[in-house]
Amino acid sequence: MAPRILILGKLVWGEKDLQEQLGGIAEVIHVEDVDRAAFLKGFESGGKYEGAVGVLHTVESNSTYGNIDKELVNALPSTIKWIAHKGAGYDDVDVIACRDKGITVSHTPKAVDEGTAETALFLLLATVRNFTLAEASLRAGNWKPKTMESTSYELSSRTLGVLGLGGIGGLLAEMVRPMGMRVIYHNRKPASDAPKGCEYFADLDEMLAQTDVLSVHIPLNDKTEHFVNDSVIRKMKKGSVIINTARGKVIDEAAMIKALEDGHLSAIGLDVFPDEPKVNPRLLEFPTATLLPHVGTENQDSRHHMEMMCVVNLRDFLTKGKGENIVPECR
Amino acid sequence: MAPRILILGKLVWGEKDLQEQLGGIAEVIHVEDVDRAAFLKGFESGGKYEGAVGVLHTVESNSTYGNIDKELVNALPSTIKWIAHKGAGYDDVDVIACRDKGITVSHTPKAVDEGTAETALFLLLATVRNFTLAEASLRAGNWKPKTMESTSYELSSRTLGVLGLGGIGGLLAEMVRPMGMRVIYHNRKPASDAPKGCEYFADLDEMLAQTDVLSVHIPLNDKTEHFVNDSVIRKMKKGSVIINTARGKVIDEAAMIKALEDGHLSAIGLDVFPDEPKVNPRLLEFPTATLLPHVGTENQDSRHHMEMMCVVNLRDFLTKGKGENIVPECR
Repeated sequence: MAPRILILGKLVWGEKDLQEQLGGIAEVIHVEDVDRAAFLKGFESGGKYEGAVGVLHTVESNSTYGNIDKELVNALPSTIKWIAHKGAGYDDVDVIACRDKGITVSHTPKAVDEGTAETALFLLLATVRNFTLAEASLRAGNWKPKTMESTSYELSSRTLGVLGLGGIGGLLAEMVRPMGMRVIYHNRKPASDAPKGCEYFADLDEMLAQTDVLSVHIPLNDKTEHFVNDSVIRKMKKGSVIINTARGKVIDEAAMIKALEDGHLSAIGLDVFPDEPKVNPRLLEFPTATLLPHVGTENQDSRHHMEMMCVVNLRDFLTKGKGENIVPECR
Repeated sequence: MAPRILILGKLVWGEKDLQEQLGGIAEVIHVEDVDRAAFLKGFESGGKYEGAVGVLHTVESNSTYGNIDKELVNALPSTIKWIAHKGAGYDDVDVIACRDKGITVSHTPKAVDEGTAETALFLLLATVRNFTLAEASLRAGNWKPKTMESTSYELSSRTLGVLGLGGIGGLLAEMVRPMGMRVIYHNRKPASDAPKGCEYFADLDEMLAQTDVLSVHIPLNDKTEHFVNDSVIRKMKKGSVIINTARGKVIDEAAMIKALEDGHLSAIGLDVFPDEPKVNPRLLEFPTATLLPHVGTENQDSRHHMEMMCVVNLRDFLTKGKGENIVPECR
């Protein structure tokens, strides 16, 4: 009997890949239960998921089955050995509980780099050039906003501060090089693969003091929740801009709103929020806020790359005993 | 007596440069008349502008004095020898009438390149990634648009067709290179300074057949009005996108709207319109239209670069007899 692989959530663009890559070596089952209890029932003796060895997990499935939390992990049978998570961030998967139960979790880091870095670049242009403000003015029948010229800049005269230069931050740094934008960054250690010309700051405060636009690229975990707090924001120059394409909870939203209210921040560009899909209605009132509904990878190409990576990780697990892209906690 | 230089319209960011560059060699006069007739009166014998040799012209002054049209040019005294036009496009200056009267017209081509190319890049991301649609959905309380994923792409999978690769189109081509976007272009002749990797198409139709996003960068003149007409649009692939940061009249707006209505075009990104500041209200109804109120250079840096260039051209004219950046028609 071919080993069973469960698909949690619909694969939009990878179905063909799924059959091409797994068709001959696994029985692929699309999970279509009404809730978590019904899903878990499938693992019982004689159940439709009995003996399943791997899971492909999508964020979309959380609304039906909940996050892959400790309770769910502990309720899974010991036959499950691999969870391929479709996404770079995996704060909705309890990877420690998985590791402790002998389940390896893989994710899709590089597959999201381009889509997310493009989103950050869009938010950078929308805020520094005040394009969001300009379009709202046109749509309100007012043509150009009066404050546009005096509050807008070319990227070439601004300094981009990247908080957490990895795949996405590094690609963003490469994307702004043709504009001649200065890029500085803070990581715990210098990035070995930082693009040419990016200046490393071991001291976060020193980086913040020179930053016009802070772009946030750190993952969400216990240590990074509210990392960008009032103290961090106030160390930036007056009139600075914050862009966030990582996770909403990495920023203290109340502190950010206060800084917008008193003018310490001139604009924000957000693709992520602390309590998605809810958006704090106060954010909608700032004319220089550009707000996207977490669409960093919401396109055919990014989705295809991510789904393909999950499928390849599962195939390698089945044929070689181990796949790639394992999250650090499970390595 | 120092030669008189007239400033038509207010210089926002170049006033300091004006004094630094022209202070010792010219009498700089800010024109603040109520209309064209009052302005022309100043040239009469004993008038405040008598003997003026140069003019710095800004688009903003057109609302008071009208365009620099044939009537105005012919009414100017023969002492005027140089008009420094602040802008890259100069369709509001009758350069032929100027040339025939012995007036040299300069403009500010390179000074606008970065600001305009950044604007085109913003429109490219807003349309291909459907960010405008996404933000409108969030602001309407709907989180992600349902059609987002199936209708959006990374730049890497798209082909950019540049119509008129000069300073701005060339810089845009450089800006999309880090995303791995394919760039093709059509000029009458291959551009000698085309960025590496841009493919030249002598045949416009062949370029259009391979283009996903057409970015328009040709100047407006008698030969280019409605150059992008129904025939051109229909030669592009179904679902294509048009971006325009050049001049509104270069596109046949009615043909573009028809193509949006029947789905031949999937999205448009416009910074320019045929009858600014008026915007055809029909355009506002398309959810995939990104519309900016001609803000390609509406920022401190671009304005400063443009004003500085005008001032330097006038100074060179005064001290060396000839400045740079002369429009082709006057060379």
